[in-house]
Amino acid sequence: MSLIVVGSMAFDDIETPFGKSDKIVGGAATYIAWCASNFTPVKQISVVGGDFPQEELNALSARGVALEGVQIKKDEKSFYWSGRYHMDMNTRDTLITELNVLGTFEPVVPESYQDCEFLMLGNLAPSVQLSVIDQLKKKPKLIAMDTMNFWMDIALDDLKKVIAKVDVLLVNDSEARQLSGEYSLVKAAAAISKMGPKYLIIKKGEHGALLFHDKEVFFAPALPLEEVFDPTGAGDTFAGGFIGHLAKTKDISFNNMKTAIIVGSAMASFCVEKFGTQRLREIKKQDIDIRIKEFVDLVNFDIALA
Amino acid sequence: MSLIVVGSMAFDDIETPFGKSDKIVGGAATYIAWCASNFTPVKQISVVGGDFPQEELNALSARGVALEGVQIKKDEKSFYWSGRYHMDMNTRDTLITELNVLGTFEPVVPESYQDCEFLMLGNLAPSVQLSVIDQLKKKPKLIAMDTMNFWMDIALDDLKKVIAKVDVLLVNDSEARQLSGEYSLVKAAAAISKMGPKYLIIKKGEHGALLFHDKEVFFAPALPLEEVFDPTGAGDTFAGGFIGHLAKTKDISFNNMKTAIIVGSAMASFCVEKFGTQRLREIKKQDIDIRIKEFVDLVNFDIALA
Repeated sequence: MSLIVVGSMAFDDIETPFGKSDKIVGGAATYIAWCASNFTPVKQISVVGGDFPQEELNALSARGVALEGVQIKKDEKSFYWSGRYHMDMNTRDTLITELNVLGTFEPVVPESYQDCEFLMLGNLAPSVQLSVIDQLKKKPKLIAMDTMNFWMDIALDDLKKVIAKVDVLLVNDSEARQLSGEYSLVKAAAAISKMGPKYLIIKKGEHGALLFHDKEVFFAPALPLEEVFDPTGAGDTFAGGFIGHLAKTKDISFNNMKTAIIVGSAMASFCVEKFGTQRLREIKKQDIDIRIKEFVDLVNFDIALA
Repeated sequence: MSLIVVGSMAFDDIETPFGKSDKIVGGAATYIAWCASNFTPVKQISVVGGDFPQEELNALSARGVALEGVQIKKDEKSFYWSGRYHMDMNTRDTLITELNVLGTFEPVVPESYQDCEFLMLGNLAPSVQLSVIDQLKKKPKLIAMDTMNFWMDIALDDLKKVIAKVDVLLVNDSEARQLSGEYSLVKAAAAISKMGPKYLIIKKGEHGALLFHDKEVFFAPALPLEEVFDPTGAGDTFAGGFIGHLAKTKDISFNNMKTAIIVGSAMASFCVEKFGTQRLREIKKQDIDIRIKEFVDLVNFDIALA
């Protein structure tokens, strides 16, 4: 019993107002795995080229991340993305995108993954996400899916097919607006719920995240930080903390999803403190517990009103 | 024992993507009084022209708002503002500003106001705010102050003199950045606390509000609404709910300020539902209690982490 994570494992080259990363390991599934493996065993599905560092694979393996589903194409190159963040750290320009191995990726779900109860579809081509769902012999207890505006622009029909099959959809505020055609996030959530997902998480970056389910709504703030050093991977890390907590507790009630969102927010707040996955590699259980306590203090108030 | 409110009472002409208000009653002190009078008696200091409707003054009076400090200049016109909101409802263009009576306003604090323990300085020329502080024979238990970027642009020296004398400063996020020269709100808060205020509230509109005090921080969300119909006066209403709750409970601890911010957020969520002060005139105590309960549900989560 554990968690399947699907997504890119890649190289990033990041420039922020605080500095340049040079070429470092990134990719949605990399961030999700580093994060979720704090809470539960992870079974990874991805593809890398011969240039992807063996030490990175070893480090993930040592954390309980199974790599049988990670295809290594020795004669090809890994996915590569280069981007530059603006001063506000919320907007960025993509400088280079080289799909490389990702362009022809056909995921294969190993037999040893078939017992997984939780499936996290990281941001990736909807056709790849759909292929993984279709290969599972038994419907997982919960399927969560992250995506982005890029797929809404070029593969909306495919995207809608996947969205119809998932339980939880994660998008940011502008993506929720684009997908629904509604400006109000409350109306956007209602429209998106009609597409399939029973739960919708709208990520608002430094402004926190909203969880919608039926008529209920929950809000989790982002931790106010002195500096956001590098936002790359924060959304993936959030997703990893969210699904990691659910997989660990095996409780998919709305109430436990609230806690899962706080865990995701706490993990994302670590991610942005250093370049790439660096901070996620350093933190221990105690750091996570302290950070979650900070979230409790941040929103806790006395409701004794006369 | 009660609350002094200082600010404009005026006419607004508002255009939003949802419609036009025509010329209606507005002004910072008007919104604050309508809101705070739900919680505590209010003693108003302002100035209006002969064109200001007597029915509005009667209605405020009937709610326990003392008007002895409101100057009526029969042969002059009230302050008038006209503005148009963009689709996002967070940005607006000012179309017309006519200072009229506000241009020469010299506030006079009536003797009957001298026993007040709480002072709310609504957005107004810093020199007027300072004059009211100076006229008080005894320092109030708490002075809170709202201001805006306009005064940072044209009267920064005066503004800093007032800020040095208040306990709580309320500004929005871009104003906090302008005042401090810091982009990070955590750093902005630290810089502004050195200017005098022990407490800083940073209003983020639809993204909620932050309260900073020493090393502590509290976050209150805004209620996700289907529609924001008219944001005019939301910040003033927030201030009115905040100071109203403090004046009612006479408790100025950090803990009670958290509750006060939730009350302010709840009141602001009513304000934006209709044009001008209309919604604030309609709501009853029961509506307020239900709305505050919605805030509890919005942020409440289970922290039992293994």
